Amino acid sequence: MNTRSWILSSIDRELHVETFSIDDDDVKGTPKGWSVRKRTLRGGRREGVDVIEIDNGAIEVTLIPSRGMGVWQAIAEKDRLGWQAPIRGPVHPRDVDLGEPSGLGWLDGFDELLVRCGLESNGAPEFDDDGRLRYPLHGRIANQPADEVTVTVDSDRGEIRVSGIVDEVRFHFLKVRLHATWVTRFGESGFRIEDEVENLSASPAEVQMLYHVNIGVPLLDAGAQLVAPAHTVVPRNDHAATTVDSYDSYRGEEAGYEEQVYFYKMNAAGDGQTRVLLKNAHGTQGVSLVYDARRLPCFSQWKNTTAAVDGYVTGIEPATNFPNPRSFEGDQGRVIVLEGSGRTSLGLGVEWHRDAKAVASGEARVLKLQAGRTPKVFKKPQSGWCADA
Amino acid sequence: MNTRSWILSSIDRELHVETFSIDDDDVKGTPKGWSVRKRTLRGGRREGVDVIEIDNGAIEVTLIPSRGMGVWQAIAEKDRLGWQAPIRGPVHPRDVDLGEPSGLGWLDGFDELLVRCGLESNGAPEFDDDGRLRYPLHGRIANQPADEVTVTVDSDRGEIRVSGIVDEVRFHFLKVRLHATWVTRFGESGFRIEDEVENLSASPAEVQMLYHVNIGVPLLDAGAQLVAPAHTVVPRNDHAATTVDSYDSYRGEEAGYEEQVYFYKMNAAGDGQTRVLLKNAHGTQGVSLVYDARRLPCFSQWKNTTAAVDGYVTGIEPATNFPNPRSFEGDQGRVIVLEGSGRTSLGLGVEWHRDAKAVASGEARVLKLQAGRTPKVFKKPQSGWCADA
Amino acid sequence: MNTRSWILSSIDRELHVETFSIDDDDVKGTPKGWSVRKRTLRGGRREGVDVIEIDNGAIEVTLIPSRGMGVWQAIAEKDRLGWQAPIRGPVHPRDVDLGEPSGLGWLDGFDELLVRCGLESNGAPEFDDDGRLRYPLHGRIANQPADEVTVTVDSDRGEIRVSGIVDEVRFHFLKVRLHATWVTRFGESGFRIEDEVENLSASPAEVQMLYHVNIGVPLLDAGAQLVAPAHTVVPRNDHAATTVDSYDSYRGEEAGYEEQVYFYKMNAAGDGQTRVLLKNAHGTQGVSLVYDARRLPCFSQWKNTTAAVDGYVTGIEPATNFPNPRSFEGDQGRVIVLEGSGRTSLGLGVEWHRDAKAVASGEARVLKLQAGRTPKVFKKPQSGWCADA
Repeated sequence: MNTRSWILSSIDRELHVETFSIDDDDVKGTPKGWSVRKRTLRGGRREGVDVIEIDNGAIEVTLIPSRGMGVWQAIAEKDRLGWQAPIRGPVHPRDVDLGEPSGLGWLDGFDELLVRCGLESNGAPEFDDDGRLRYPLHGRIANQPADEVTVTVDSDRGEIRVSGIVDEVRFHFLKVRLHATWVTRFGESGFRIEDEVENLSASPAEVQMLYHVNIGVPLLDAGAQLVAPAHTVVPRNDHAATTVDSYDSYRGEEAGYEEQVYFYKMNAAGDGQTRVLLKNAHGTQGVSLVYDARRLPCFSQWKNTTAAVDGYVTGIEPATNFPNPRSFEGDQGRVIVLEGSGRTSLGLGVEWHRDAKAVASGEARVLKLQAGRTPKVFKKPQSGWCADA
Repeated sequence: MNTRSWILSSIDRELHVETFSIDDDDVKGTPKGWSVRKRTLRGGRREGVDVIEIDNGAIEVTLIPSRGMGVWQAIAEKDRLGWQAPIRGPVHPRDVDLGEPSGLGWLDGFDELLVRCGLESNGAPEFDDDGRLRYPLHGRIANQPADEVTVTVDSDRGEIRVSGIVDEVRFHFLKVRLHATWVTRFGESGFRIEDEVENLSASPAEVQMLYHVNIGVPLLDAGAQLVAPAHTVVPRNDHAATTVDSYDSYRGEEAGYEEQVYFYKMNAAGDGQTRVLLKNAHGTQGVSLVYDARRLPCFSQWKNTTAAVDGYVTGIEPATNFPNPRSFEGDQGRVIVLEGSGRTSLGLGVEWHRDAKAVASGEARVLKLQAGRTPKVFKKPQSGWCADA
Repeated sequence: MNTRSWILSSIDRELHVETFSIDDDDVKGTPKGWSVRKRTLRGGRREGVDVIEIDNGAIEVTLIPSRGMGVWQAIAEKDRLGWQAPIRGPVHPRDVDLGEPSGLGWLDGFDELLVRCGLESNGAPEFDDDGRLRYPLHGRIANQPADEVTVTVDSDRGEIRVSGIVDEVRFHFLKVRLHATWVTRFGESGFRIEDEVENLSASPAEVQMLYHVNIGVPLLDAGAQLVAPAHTVVPRNDHAATTVDSYDSYRGEEAGYEEQVYFYKMNAAGDGQTRVLLKNAHGTQGVSLVYDARRLPCFSQWKNTTAAVDGYVTGIEPATNFPNPRSFEGDQGRVIVLEGSGRTSLGLGVEWHRDAKAVASGEARVLKLQAGRTPKVFKKPQSGWCADA
C-alpha cells in the first residue's frame, strides 16, 4: 500500500508546519501533475489565514483550515468555481465578530465556495425576549480554526484527503466537534466532503448543518437554471413568492436586487441519494451537488443576482434544516439529536461540469431521479416551512 | 523624473514586506536626512501592529496601516504632537471590540494624533428599538487594516507619500473603500491627508467622515486657546453650556473633569478653504488644521482637560457632520451621498507651529479669514445642531 | 547577591523575546534541576499564546502571560494540578469575545488552574435596563495580555519570580493595572501569587478580585472533601440548598450535574491568615490555599462534578466579594475602593500536597484555625449574601 500522511498542525503533538509542499515525486505510484501545498496569507483581514492548495491534476482547490476547513474556491485553467464577494478574503476569524449584537457579523467573513453553517444553529439570527442575540447568523463553525490538520495521499485509492477537527465548544453549553474531511481523486473535476459531527459531551446534544455552496460568475449568468428533482418548492417569504413562477431560473446582474430564497424537498433514489444541477444559460458549464436526502432532507436555493460588485451569487444548500431561526426549526424537529458521545455522518459531493457533455450527463441523472414527476410549487410561504408564514 | 515607489503590503500582488527601510541614498535628487521605515510592534495589545515611521528631515511621523492608516504621533526634537492616552497603544484592531453591546469598544483603541471616524457613521453610539447596537461610537474605519500600502518618494515634487486602501464592507450592507493618502514635503513641519472615499457598490451609499485630531501635552496647557474663524458656536449639551463663555480657551489638568464639546460653523475663503489654530498659553507652540469647509462643513471642539493620567487632551475635528447619533445627523442631511461606484475627496492639512513666529503667522491667517466678524455664540444647545436639544 | 533578571517582553523598552531558556547554569549559587523557558504556542485557538514554563526542581508550572498571567497548570511527575476543560486551551484572548451580548464569552477561554476574575467586576453577567451587557461574566482581566514580563532568579532568597503588568483600561472609564507576580522557591511543591492592583486614574476607582482556583482529576474524586475553617456557609441558590448538608464533600462524575455554589466566611488567625484544604477521598493528595481573610473576606466553593468530558472540576475561590452581579455586590460594599493613584495588595499561596503526610499536615493547620468551632450552615440562600435570595 502506498499511502503517506503528513500532519500540518496538531495541538496533540505540539506541531505546526509553517509551509508545506508535496507533489507526485513524494508518493510512489501516483500520476504526474498533482501537488499539495500549505501557506499562510498576509495582509488585511487575511493576515494569518492558513490555506491548503490541492491540485489533483485537473482542478486546484483551496481549503481554509483557519476557517473551519471551508472550501475557498476551485480553479481549472481560466475558470473559477466560487464567487467574488465584496470583501477581500479569506478573512481571519479573529476579524469576524460573531457576537455582534445584530447577529450579522458572520457576513464579514463570507466569501467561500463552500462554507458549513452550524453546528448549534444556522439560519437567520435569533434573539431572546430581552433583544439579546441568542443564535448568530449561520452559527459558529465556519469561524473556528481547524487543528489536527492532516494530508493523506493514497495511491491505491487514487485519492488526496485533507482532514482536520474543528471544535464548537462552550463550557456549560454545546460541546461538539466537526471531523472534517475533504477528498478528491487524481484527475477528477470535483471533490467530496465527508464529515462527522461528534458530541464531546456525555449529555445529549442537538446540532444542525447546512452546506452553503456558492456560485457566481462565470458559471452563474442570466438564464442559468437550477435543475433539481424537486418534490416540493416553497417561497421563503412574500418577496420570494412574487417570482415563484421562475424559481428555477436566474436573472442577470441587477443593482439593488433583494435576495430571494426557495425551500425544497427533493425526490431521491431508494438509498436516499439525490442530486441537483446548476447550469449556465447555454448549458456549457455546471455544477452538481450529490448527497443523501435522508441525512440532508432540506434544501435551500438562495438567489442573490445583484450587481457583480455587490456579490452576484446563488447559494445551493443541502441541509438538515431550513435556515429559519433556530427555535422555529427546533419546533419542527429539524435538528439532529446526538446522544452523549454520539456521532453522525454528513457530507456531499461536488461535481464541476466543464463542458456541455458533462452538463448534459449531470442533467440526465437529475431527470432520471425526478422520473417525470411534477413538483408541487407553492405560491405562498407555508406554515411549518417558513418562519414568516 | 525621480519618483520611486515601494509596495509594502498588497493582497492583489500577494506581497507583504516584513521590514522596510529607505533613506536619502535611495532616491536621487532628494535632500539629506529623510527616511522611511516600516516595522511590526510586539507585545501587549500592540502585538502585530504595523507602523510606518517617516522622517522628512524636520519631523518624524508614525502612521498605522494596521489601524486604518491613522497618524499615531509626530515627533520633532524633544517635542511630541499627539497625546498620552491611558492605554499603551497603538492597539491592534483584533483587540478592539467594536461590536460590544455598549457601542463604546472603540475607546479601547483610541490613542492617535489623527484618527478617522466613519465611514458609515461617526459620533455617539446609537441603538435600535430593541436596545441593540446599531452604530458603534465613531464607526469602523479606524479599526480596519489597510492594504495595498505604498510608499512613494517624489524628488520632483519634493514629497513623501504613503497610501493604502481601507475597506469598510459588509455583504448586503455598506461597501465603501477609503483610499487614504498621507503626504509630507521634505523639511516641512506638517503633513496633509488626501483621502478619497469610493462606493464599491452599484447602489447609492451614504457616508460620513470626521477627522479626530487630538492634542495633549506639551502643546495643550492651561490658557491654551482655539483660534477659529467661527461663524456660529453651539454647546453640545447643557454641561457644555455651563462654560460656553470660555469655549475657546482651555483649563489645566483637573481630575474628574467631564468632557465638553462645542459645535462650530466656520467662516471660509471664497474657495471654501478655512483654518483653525490651537496654540498654547504663551503662543510658542501651535497646530493649525487647514481644510475645505464646503466638504467638511461641521467642526467639533472636544475638551477633555482631565488629569494627565486620565488623558488630558482636546480634539479638534473637521467633519462632514456633528458627532451626534447617526439617525439624527441623517435627518439633518449631514451625510455624503455617493452614487453607485461614486467617489468623493476629503482631507486636511496639519501644520505644526514650533515657535512663536510660526504661531503668530498661523493666527494671522485665521484672523484674516475671520475679517473681524463676531461669532454667534449660542448659550444653549440648539435644535438641529444637537441631538440633546 | 546573586540575583539575575531577564525581561521577556516590554513595551517600554520595545523588546520582545521570541524564545527563552535558562537553567541552573545561568545563576550562581542555585540548586540543580530548575529551569525557566518561554515559548509561543501554535494552532487552533492557542495560536500566538505565550507561555512560561517554570520547573523549580519539584514541580513544573505553566504561566500564561497572554492570558493575564494566569496559571495554566502544575505538573509533578505524572500528576497534574489543574483540570481538563472541554476546550483545547490555553486560548488566545483574541478568540474570546468578552463583549458577546450574553456576557458569557469568558467561558470560551476558561481552562486554567488559577484564573483571576476582575478587576472592574467578577461574578455573573449583569445587564442594564435595556438588556445590554454591562458587566461580563468574571470580568476582563484574564483576557488581557501581560507586558513588562520579567523573570527573576534570586539565589539568596532561593526564589524564582515571574512578574508582569496587565492593564484593564478604558478611556473615560476604569483605568487599573494589575502588577502580577508569581513566586516559587526551589524545590517547593507550591507557589504564591503576590499581586498589586494600581489605580492609574487620578480619580477614585472600585475594583474586585476573585482568585478562581480550579481542581479536577486526579485530585478531585468521589469523596473528596473541602476542609475549611468555616464561620458561615450559605448556599448560593435553591439548587445549591438542596444538598447543603453535604456541602463540604464531592460526588463522582455525573453527566448532566448542575453546578452548585456555596459562599463562605472563614475563621482566621489574629493576623488575618487563613487556609483551606481540598483533599481527595483517601487523603493522599491535596491542595491548600493560604491567604489573608481581611483582604479576601469572601470565599466561594464551586462544585461542577459533571462528566469528565464536560469538565469535572471544583473551584475554590478566595475573593474580595461573592460572584454575584456587580451592582448587588456594590450595594453590599464588597468592593475595594482605591483613591486616585492608589494601590492595594492581594494574593494567595498554593500548596500542593502530594502524599498523605502532607495532606494530614495541611488538614491539621486548618483544624487549628477552626479550633473546634462549628460553622453556621444556612439551609437557604441568605439576603445580603445571595443575589437570588
